[in-house]
Amino acid sequence: MSVNRSAAALVDVPRGLAGVVVTDTEIGGVRGLEGFYHYRQYSAVELARTRGFEDVWHLLVHGALPDAERAVGFAAETASLRRLPDEVRAALPAIAAASARSGPLAGLRTALSLLGAAQGFRPVYDIGTDERRRDTLAAAAAVPTLLTALHRLGRGLEPVEPREDLSYAANYLYMLTGSEPDPQRARAVEQYLISTIDHGFNASTFTARVITSTGADVAACLVGAVGALSGPLHGGAPSRALDTLDAIGTADRIDSWIRERVLAGDRIMGFGHAVYRTEDPRSRMLREIAQRFGGPCVDFAVEVERQVEAILAELKPGRELHTNVEFYAGVVMELCGLPREMFTPTFAAARVVGWSANLLEQAADPKIIRPAARYVGPAAPVAVPV
Amino acid sequence: MSVNRSAAALVDVPRGLAGVVVTDTEIGGVRGLEGFYHYRQYSAVELARTRGFEDVWHLLVHGALPDAERAVGFAAETASLRRLPDEVRAALPAIAAASARSGPLAGLRTALSLLGAAQGFRPVYDIGTDERRRDTLAAAAAVPTLLTALHRLGRGLEPVEPREDLSYAANYLYMLTGSEPDPQRARAVEQYLISTIDHGFNASTFTARVITSTGADVAACLVGAVGALSGPLHGGAPSRALDTLDAIGTADRIDSWIRERVLAGDRIMGFGHAVYRTEDPRSRMLREIAQRFGGPCVDFAVEVERQVEAILAELKPGRELHTNVEFYAGVVMELCGLPREMFTPTFAAARVVGWSANLLEQAADPKIIRPAARYVGPAAPVAVPV
Repeated sequence: MSVNRSAAALVDVPRGLAGVVVTDTEIGGVRGLEGFYHYRQYSAVELARTRGFEDVWHLLVHGALPDAERAVGFAAETASLRRLPDEVRAALPAIAAASARSGPLAGLRTALSLLGAAQGFRPVYDIGTDERRRDTLAAAAAVPTLLTALHRLGRGLEPVEPREDLSYAANYLYMLTGSEPDPQRARAVEQYLISTIDHGFNASTFTARVITSTGADVAACLVGAVGALSGPLHGGAPSRALDTLDAIGTADRIDSWIRERVLAGDRIMGFGHAVYRTEDPRSRMLREIAQRFGGPCVDFAVEVERQVEAILAELKPGRELHTNVEFYAGVVMELCGLPREMFTPTFAAARVVGWSANLLEQAADPKIIRPAARYVGPAAPVAVPV
Repeated sequence: MSVNRSAAALVDVPRGLAGVVVTDTEIGGVRGLEGFYHYRQYSAVELARTRGFEDVWHLLVHGALPDAERAVGFAAETASLRRLPDEVRAALPAIAAASARSGPLAGLRTALSLLGAAQGFRPVYDIGTDERRRDTLAAAAAVPTLLTALHRLGRGLEPVEPREDLSYAANYLYMLTGSEPDPQRARAVEQYLISTIDHGFNASTFTARVITSTGADVAACLVGAVGALSGPLHGGAPSRALDTLDAIGTADRIDSWIRERVLAGDRIMGFGHAVYRTEDPRSRMLREIAQRFGGPCVDFAVEVERQVEAILAELKPGRELHTNVEFYAGVVMELCGLPREMFTPTFAAARVVGWSANLLEQAADPKIIRPAARYVGPAAPVAVPV
């Protein structure tokens, strides 16, 4: 529905708002031509190589990396927020049962909404920066607890209570499986999570900012973002690339399988990105992580990548088509024992920190986001028929 | 976080996207200079005067007013969707308890999310127009049931099961109070609801469309919209205008009370609108409805309006400041026995139809809404400190 303040004031922009700058940000950026992205002033990949998840979380929501003392304090603070309020825990079996058909993000959407209500989150414009940030920490710290509890309840298993002595990533794997993960797996998941915290002004981040701009509470903002992430055009299905690997099956079938798909005009899942014109920096890092594990599955994935790139270069010359984040993210998550239906939820467990940083930045500059539409239907008014 | 495909492709627009046309629409429009708004080709106020809520709901989601036979069928179809699935009903006490501190929209956000999960709503791009529309009907028809059940549970009362033989509006009042409303009240609430279904491309409507654009399911879209509506800058507090009437107290105090506030630069709640430069057409209709009830409270409200307009004309000459929709909406809802904490939720029970129409229009034109941001932080990369 359109609001015409005056016809002259209307501004036309590209459909889908592509390239339309809706805000300035200090949170980060993506340079597609260079194959580079950063959180604040640091390379995101370098952060993933050298830091823990909690340090990068601190960087995103506090604006700076913590020194050693603050790092310990922040890790302890967020770890203490992992345990769910009793009334939320009590409702999880019902939420798990209801979301059996709709999937884990519908469950997270509901449970996170309930958590925010139970925590008594207040409208962001009614509270100060510290309370806002604390609300985002309480919400984000609980996301792995909610996701893993719903996952286990959906399989008839008891939820595993969080442990405060494990890192965010290790505790996530621990709550999922009930046993402490080996350090290599915990670190691989941690690096994936860090690399996924934020990446461009995507639809879920924008949703979080639009809702924040109305002054709604932190849960309303994050629940809306989870909803946007659940859309297949956004959160996608990081398991699709693995499904492709499964469908190809063996190394001798790669060439014919890929050629057939490319010539039929099908998209090859796990290849190509809207922004990067060169190798996706996340993909490179995740390949290295996969190769640390090694084994026939990793060798097969690397061989598929090599052959697909060669075939695409031959059949689609001039197009830069490389693996995107989904390809090796799927391989890494599979190596770490994450079930495929938890790939997108694991993405959410990282991205909630990016949403948090964005909503905090948006809330600091109170102004409602309220665009316009142009009415193009039949001329009004027509008399209402009686 | 910014995505720079190339610097030249970026488009700058006004902050908050004011006046930025993000879509064409056939749903309706607002003409602020004329004091006129419409749903499709019909005056919204004329629809409210002459039609029932279900007919206008049909107009919004099917694109045309129903003939007599279809009207009966649509009313029966939506009435049959009022009853909640058992697993949702079972979870409502826990949701009501958890949202006691966060308010009824946090409760609705959670319960509607659960309902969508329980209904097994699928991503909008994976289903056809009919299934999408059916999902919106199932969600919207359940909103009054969810709202009234949560309200009653929060007060230690049993929820009242919906009745299919009552109109949407009458059934809403019935479920709230447990007794069948008198026809004048049911009709007054119905007219308020019709007048509130849609009004410009507001933040909640935009939120619903952004989430829809990712292909998420109908519940994800509507839950995000509820979240945006819960923001004080958007859903506001229709009870604030009544609080002003209470604070003034008696007719002899109007002049001094208002002058003091205006001279102090305070905003008078219930007066002034971002779009209308003339009388708000909703306000005029709601005043007439209030005057049908009559009584000292209505006379007092009319007298306050008269004196405020005179004082504003004297102290702020040249500014067109009239009552907005909140002023008489509050008076009408109070006359109809709605408790003040249910004013904004009642707004949601109407607006969910507008969101539905917008998401259906958005889903028909699949394209993700993904704007950009401009990174303005310190130059990157800086080496990560070890």
